[in-house]
Amino acid sequence: MAKIGIADTTFARVDMASFAISAIKKNSKHEIERYTVPGFKDLPVACLMLFEDYNCDIVMAFGMAGAAPIDRQCAHEASTGLQNVGLKAKKHLIEVFVYTDEPKNDGDLFQIAKNSA
Amino acid sequence: MAKIGIADTTFARVDMASFAISAIKKNSKHEIERYTVPGFKDLPVACLMLFEDYNCDIVMAFGMAGAAPIDRQCAHEASTGLQNVGLKAKKHLIEVFVYTDEPKNDGDLFQIAKNSA
Amino acid sequence: MAKIGIADTTFARVDMASFAISAIKKNSKHEIERYTVPGFKDLPVACLMLFEDYNCDIVMAFGMAGAAPIDRQCAHEASTGLQNVGLKAKKHLIEVFVYTDEPKNDGDLFQIAKNSA
Amino acid sequence: MAKIGIADTTFARVDMASFAISAIKKNSKHEIERYTVPGFKDLPVACLMLFEDYNCDIVMAFGMAGAAPIDRQCAHEASTGLQNVGLKAKKHLIEVFVYTDEPKNDGDLFQIAKNSA
Amino acid sequence: MAKIGIADTTFARVDMASFAISAIKKNSKHEIERYTVPGFKDLPVACLMLFEDYNCDIVMAFGMAGAAPIDRQCAHEASTGLQNVGLKAKKHLIEVFVYTDEPKNDGDLFQIAKNSA
Repeated sequence: MAKIGIADTTFARVDMASFAISAIKKNSKHEIERYTVPGFKDLPVACLMLFEDYNCDIVMAFGMAGAAPIDRQCAHEASTGLQNVGLKAKKHLIEVFVYTDEPKNDGDLFQIAKNSA
Repeated sequence: MAKIGIADTTFARVDMASFAISAIKKNSKHEIERYTVPGFKDLPVACLMLFEDYNCDIVMAFGMAGAAPIDRQCAHEASTGLQNVGLKAKKHLIEVFVYTDEPKNDGDLFQIAKNSA
Repeated sequence: MAKIGIADTTFARVDMASFAISAIKKNSKHEIERYTVPGFKDLPVACLMLFEDYNCDIVMAFGMAGAAPIDRQCAHEASTGLQNVGLKAKKHLIEVFVYTDEPKNDGDLFQIAKNSA
Repeated sequence: MAKIGIADTTFARVDMASFAISAIKKNSKHEIERYTVPGFKDLPVACLMLFEDYNCDIVMAFGMAGAAPIDRQCAHEASTGLQNVGLKAKKHLIEVFVYTDEPKNDGDLFQIAKNSA
Repeated sequence: MAKIGIADTTFARVDMASFAISAIKKNSKHEIERYTVPGFKDLPVACLMLFEDYNCDIVMAFGMAGAAPIDRQCAHEASTGLQNVGLKAKKHLIEVFVYTDEPKNDGDLFQIAKNSA
């Protein structure tokens, strides 16, 4: 049984984390630790804490990026930070970023979340 | 009670840091340390000093980027540096960058500053 | 005789890894360790594990990127992570990313895989 | 009294470093160490040496970038390296990059150099 | 007398490394170590080995990038890796990347190679 960290943001317009948490609980007995930060640029530090201070075995980071070019750039910076955290912890960090200008359906997201957990 | 670091720049055209500081003082008893540098590319080193030398528990970095493509690139470089600082310190570093070509109102900024503190 | 790590993704639409593995087996007696992850952003951590935990001497990372600009950005982030892993391990990490909007033929890929192994 | 490192390039078309050095000498008694490299991509290593081997307290890096997109990309890479050096040394590294396609006047540059020193 | 590392790629369409090596031999008595890898993304690890395992005092990395946007992105990733290697070794790493869509003459290249050595 693993401990799964869930990092998400208050700025996201859909509560993806709760969606993932209920999917994980429905399908497994894994322990879950949730850490919510303001925006997606705060996710890398939260994920590092989930690995190092909360001893999570795997972490999922949920973020939602707007459609403006600057949003893309910010998501890129957050994502680069997440890559660094995964390598620092040498544990899998599943990034689930949704771009509000891309058509996505919840079923896809559910599948990603379920597969990652 | 936490110690909050505030890093800002002399190149910014609006004194966002003072705005945030008065918001923090109005709503809490947190200790504040302010560090002002010339431009936003100097913010990462200032933030690292605020964490490691001034023992801040959380740092807010205020920057203002111009509208030219090169300004965006420079903001990207500063922002990547801030991400590295947050991970190095494993403490939250709230980046508050305003892009002068984006409509923003002070109320939004106040909310971000207040939530972050 | 070397130990070759093969990291690939379940999201790729062509099983490039199997193609490379049979090419390696046909041409050499090298030991092979395969590690499959969901998407290419998960490859850097997998490659780090292949080097450090599975003691591979060289690692090949297979990914397939879509045609949208966001796919390019994600591939860039994964690729930067792979560069970091190679430097951390100081061992060769051969990145084999195929972009679905570029004409490629399997012969080219075979040559790359064979040369790399 | 501080020791100021000045890193510049032989490829720059204006001798900005000499301009800064005379401004510093005119206004202060700071010791100056100058290190000249071929192009701006060589500046990060020079700056690291100025901090760690020449014991500079602050370093200024002068570069001049051409107008082509590839020049911008190269400046970005150099600049990211400079950010890393500043964080590694935890000392201020003032980047003074001039883009030849941007209107600039020497007075601005003088002010930046003087303020930084 | 220094030891010069020369890293180059089999994918380059012009044998720049040999050109540089003969220029160095003609003008000096420096010892030369050559390391050839498949593509330019493999150069950073090769350069790190040249510094740390072959004890080179300076390294030159020769690469040739194609004209497609993805080639530019890949060159950017390789170049960022080279920057990291130079900082890790704290020794000069001269990047000589030629972009096949830019007019260049061999005289320029010779000058760069000669100056760097």
